[in-house]
Amino acid sequence: MEVETAVLQKKNTNETQKEEKYWQYHIRKRIYRHVPITLWIQRYNKMDGLADVIAGVTLGLTLIPQSIAYSALAGVSPQYGLYSAFMGCFVYVIFGSIKEVSIGPTSLMSLLTYEYTRNLTPDFVVVMCFLVGCVEFLMGFFRLGFLVDYISVPVTSGFQTATSLIIIVSQMKGILGVKFHSSGFMDNLCKLFIHANETKFSGDFALGISCIIFLIFMRKLKDIPISEDTTKKKVLKHTLWLLSTSRNFLIVVITSTIAFGFEYNGKEAPFALTKNVRSGLPPFQFPTPPTVDNHTYMWTELLIHPEFRNSIVVIPVIAVLANVAIAKAFTTEGTIDATQEMFALSFCNILGSFFQSMPTCGAFTRSAVANASGVRTPLAGLYSGILTVLALTFLTPYFHLIPRATLSAVLITAVVFLIDWEICKPLWTISKKELFVVVFTLITCLSFGVEFGLFVGVCVTVLNLVFKWARPEIDIETILIHNNSNTVEYNLVRPSMSVYFPAVDLVCNKVIKSAARPVVVDCHHFSNVDYTAAKALSTLIRTFKDRGQTLIFFHISPKLCRTLQHAGCESLVHANTDGELYSLLFGYDLADFSDKPFQVLRGIECIANSKDAVPLLKSPQRRMSALE
Amino acid sequence: MEVETAVLQKKNTNETQKEEKYWQYHIRKRIYRHVPITLWIQRYNKMDGLADVIAGVTLGLTLIPQSIAYSALAGVSPQYGLYSAFMGCFVYVIFGSIKEVSIGPTSLMSLLTYEYTRNLTPDFVVVMCFLVGCVEFLMGFFRLGFLVDYISVPVTSGFQTATSLIIIVSQMKGILGVKFHSSGFMDNLCKLFIHANETKFSGDFALGISCIIFLIFMRKLKDIPISEDTTKKKVLKHTLWLLSTSRNFLIVVITSTIAFGFEYNGKEAPFALTKNVRSGLPPFQFPTPPTVDNHTYMWTELLIHPEFRNSIVVIPVIAVLANVAIAKAFTTEGTIDATQEMFALSFCNILGSFFQSMPTCGAFTRSAVANASGVRTPLAGLYSGILTVLALTFLTPYFHLIPRATLSAVLITAVVFLIDWEICKPLWTISKKELFVVVFTLITCLSFGVEFGLFVGVCVTVLNLVFKWARPEIDIETILIHNNSNTVEYNLVRPSMSVYFPAVDLVCNKVIKSAARPVVVDCHHFSNVDYTAAKALSTLIRTFKDRGQTLIFFHISPKLCRTLQHAGCESLVHANTDGELYSLLFGYDLADFSDKPFQVLRGIECIANSKDAVPLLKSPQRRMSALE
Repeated sequence: MEVETAVLQKKNTNETQKEEKYWQYHIRKRIYRHVPITLWIQRYNKMDGLADVIAGVTLGLTLIPQSIAYSALAGVSPQYGLYSAFMGCFVYVIFGSIKEVSIGPTSLMSLLTYEYTRNLTPDFVVVMCFLVGCVEFLMGFFRLGFLVDYISVPVTSGFQTATSLIIIVSQMKGILGVKFHSSGFMDNLCKLFIHANETKFSGDFALGISCIIFLIFMRKLKDIPISEDTTKKKVLKHTLWLLSTSRNFLIVVITSTIAFGFEYNGKEAPFALTKNVRSGLPPFQFPTPPTVDNHTYMWTELLIHPEFRNSIVVIPVIAVLANVAIAKAFTTEGTIDATQEMFALSFCNILGSFFQSMPTCGAFTRSAVANASGVRTPLAGLYSGILTVLALTFLTPYFHLIPRATLSAVLITAVVFLIDWEICKPLWTISKKELFVVVFTLITCLSFGVEFGLFVGVCVTVLNLVFKWARPEIDIETILIHNNSNTVEYNLVRPSMSVYFPAVDLVCNKVIKSAARPVVVDCHHFSNVDYTAAKALSTLIRTFKDRGQTLIFFHISPKLCRTLQHAGCESLVHANTDGELYSLLFGYDLADFSDKPFQVLRGIECIANSKDAVPLLKSPQRRMSALE
Repeated sequence: MEVETAVLQKKNTNETQKEEKYWQYHIRKRIYRHVPITLWIQRYNKMDGLADVIAGVTLGLTLIPQSIAYSALAGVSPQYGLYSAFMGCFVYVIFGSIKEVSIGPTSLMSLLTYEYTRNLTPDFVVVMCFLVGCVEFLMGFFRLGFLVDYISVPVTSGFQTATSLIIIVSQMKGILGVKFHSSGFMDNLCKLFIHANETKFSGDFALGISCIIFLIFMRKLKDIPISEDTTKKKVLKHTLWLLSTSRNFLIVVITSTIAFGFEYNGKEAPFALTKNVRSGLPPFQFPTPPTVDNHTYMWTELLIHPEFRNSIVVIPVIAVLANVAIAKAFTTEGTIDATQEMFALSFCNILGSFFQSMPTCGAFTRSAVANASGVRTPLAGLYSGILTVLALTFLTPYFHLIPRATLSAVLITAVVFLIDWEICKPLWTISKKELFVVVFTLITCLSFGVEFGLFVGVCVTVLNLVFKWARPEIDIETILIHNNSNTVEYNLVRPSMSVYFPAVDLVCNKVIKSAARPVVVDCHHFSNVDYTAAKALSTLIRTFKDRGQTLIFFHISPKLCRTLQHAGCESLVHANTDGELYSLLFGYDLADFSDKPFQVLRGIECIANSKDAVPLLKSPQRRMSALE
């Protein structure tokens, strides 16, 4: 949007302003919004191009091994990972608005794909990808981007940590070489402890551990502090950085070469290898519902399939959340357009499904790579996509050589750094309630599945917001005003926020209980109320009238006045300026008022909130002091 | 509470203030709160006593026929209605806090009882009453009274109209003499139209219609305008009022006498009569889970019984809602203590269940009677309870003479005036959205059951509140300040309410897009933010720093300062007074500031809300004027 403004401004200086018609402006704005490439391509220069090529290739070196690993996590053959890794890249170049996002298989999508299709064939995965794309389109069309605003950072953090832990534990099983059937994270973890003594120090174990150590060491390599004062040192630093960034690719190449060595010598490798992979590019075909046991599913049947149906709601929400979270983490300029991300993801998934893709979204780990590689525009995705296509065309015959332990190591080292320890310290200081939300979301995700945990976490935070409407802070102040001859004491009741139905009883109670002197309700913070509140305020006004006590509404908006009138309020005393208020309190005519000098003394002050419901009554002493 | 204050105040003037210990005060406060009789009995005088006797007896004359009718509605024998009508009255005298409430069977409770136990024996109804009482106690103990605050007037209105319509339609079947099986309101209504031509002009029909006409006529009787200038006219007016108020009792006596006439002459009455009724008071016994087909239920089994389990959550909530709604409608002084009402209802139902009661709560129709009879304290309930006990002791042998059509007429005329037409007009003027809530709740109640409709209605209104957190109004103002030599132009961004996670992106977007001049964020309306918002604001501050644009937080609270710091904000520019703000904008030292005269001009003003997301960009013309 920022960029858009700049471009439009340039245009406007060339042409005269009035030539541009209103609707032209609007169409262009729409196009800029929904096809972001039209916006940034105008400023694209050679330096951007170079930066994007470097970033794109670096990204590709992470994308390819990760895709293969994530396909294993999703429970499908390795080629599906690569099938998912190119179309999204190409489409996102055109429709994407966040340059750091790298569309493709992700840990989250793979985990959810596995959860929903573990007992189904890969055809279901492709159909799911298509339906997910359609739902994302509908979400974009109905502008449901705002839904993501309701997922707070503590919930995201707990959710993300939970997915990381689930993936690590699921991969540890393979690396430790223990065998058992399990369902869910908790069961997995328990059985892992029970079976820990059965750990076989086999080739898988040795390879897995070595790969993890290698990957973590390589990750740290780029952080070695080398001053860039000489050209040599500069080159060294850049080489180290490149080695570090392409560590996933390197480990896959190294371990595959070892496996190739064994195969070449006619021996069996001492570690498990990947299954044989179908060669070449995927065929282009419209996704059709799969046939199982001679029964071809209908689209409608899929929508009510007990295992399947939830996925097409859960996955789109989480995909959009992931993209927006990436944007929030990396973007420094401009703003995030969640609705546009929904459209972009939708096209990525729908077109991806024509090439046998599984559901895709932006990946956190790759976004960090993209950011560190100095990506300039989403065009970087083009190069990583091309790299994936090349890998599919030329490298698939060698994919069966990739050891499974290597893929597990790639997965573990990718997600272990997503465990969000850092959030605990600030939350401990700022708000223990929010820390509880993190822990609660984490535990629920681990115990009952990530999507349920996310949902419950959102519910808890939203309920907290709902609760806030019921317990506004209400300041009650006793104020003395003197003029030459008289003194008037009144209570000023000031709710800190709008008063809607959950809070109105509390406010009325405060006003009724505040004391036997005139009460002034300060309406600064609410320009209107709902019918329930209006009814209650009308009753309050009647009560005060019956009691013969003065009740003045201060700074009431004309809208609120009308609402009260329609809700049956017969007599409303209100003042809009200090002068009006004082003259009402002293019982003067307004005209007389201007002559008289007033002195305002602010007396006993107390802030009442839910915990301290009746401050003036808290103890007899205090009450008396308020009354005397 | 008001009364409490008054009493305490009197005490304080007698004793010296310091003699009363803090804890003594608190214990007394507790007792006054939870056993309200201890409070009002101190001021009870002869006039109160007389008023309560009159009101209590009048109330009894409505309570007895209504109880019999409501037991028919609940699908149990007539004696259960009376069994439910005395214990609650006695208990509420002690624990009740709303003088207009008359505990006993109500249309709402009967309807729900029928819904949950239509296929079960009356033993289940008694056990349900006990469990409902227990749940009400727990709700009171955990101070869940606030839950009722979330049920707004439009939802209550839709719900109440729906229950009235359901009851009327269910009773019309009996009066029209058509026979069909139906499930739910919609089905009932359709079949009623289909079978309308089968209407038999039998004795039931004639009697039912006559009774309805009689009851409506009698209801209007008390509204006849008679001046009270002579004693005769006064007596006439009071007689008419008494006749009108005891109309339910009268019609039952009259029609039963007709039936007795037929029986006495050895003929069969031309209309259906009530089944034979067990005579005398109910035995006192602890409610035990019922035995069905030689299987004695366990308490735990009841809690998971498919038909039964929902009732013990739904009925307590609705019972408390009913009592609070009555309080809101009739009370003119003091405030409503929903938690205490939960305790009172709990004791009424638990003790009631020892005497075979069905679930009870306060009834709207009877409260109107109590109010019109000039009730002074809950003691009136004692007299209506005694009247019910007398009826049970002496009149049960004659109960079989009451014609069923009379009971239907009593029910219909009781609920027909609960249909809330009046709310439509003000809501049409004030808020169409709230009118939609009424209609939506009504339709959902009629289509899917009243408790589901209530739940959905609450959800809709609460979601609307949640949505409000995401779309705060944000004022953006461009302000020019001059001093002798310089001019500074800045944008003042002022969110109208607290900024929590759903709104923070919107606020940040507004600030980022507001323009290239210094931006001042007015934090008047938020004293603190949550972690998500703090994180986003920190990013915002960093973005402005990177852009080299000034961003000043105005009137920031120390708490908010700390939160931002802990959330990772490194540099925060803030001002707490106009002086500080202006000197920051002009780049002066604070010390220099006091000498310089300033002139403030408020420039272009616009209010941005969700519908008008980018006001400065709305059209090129407008944007330019804002930029130049």
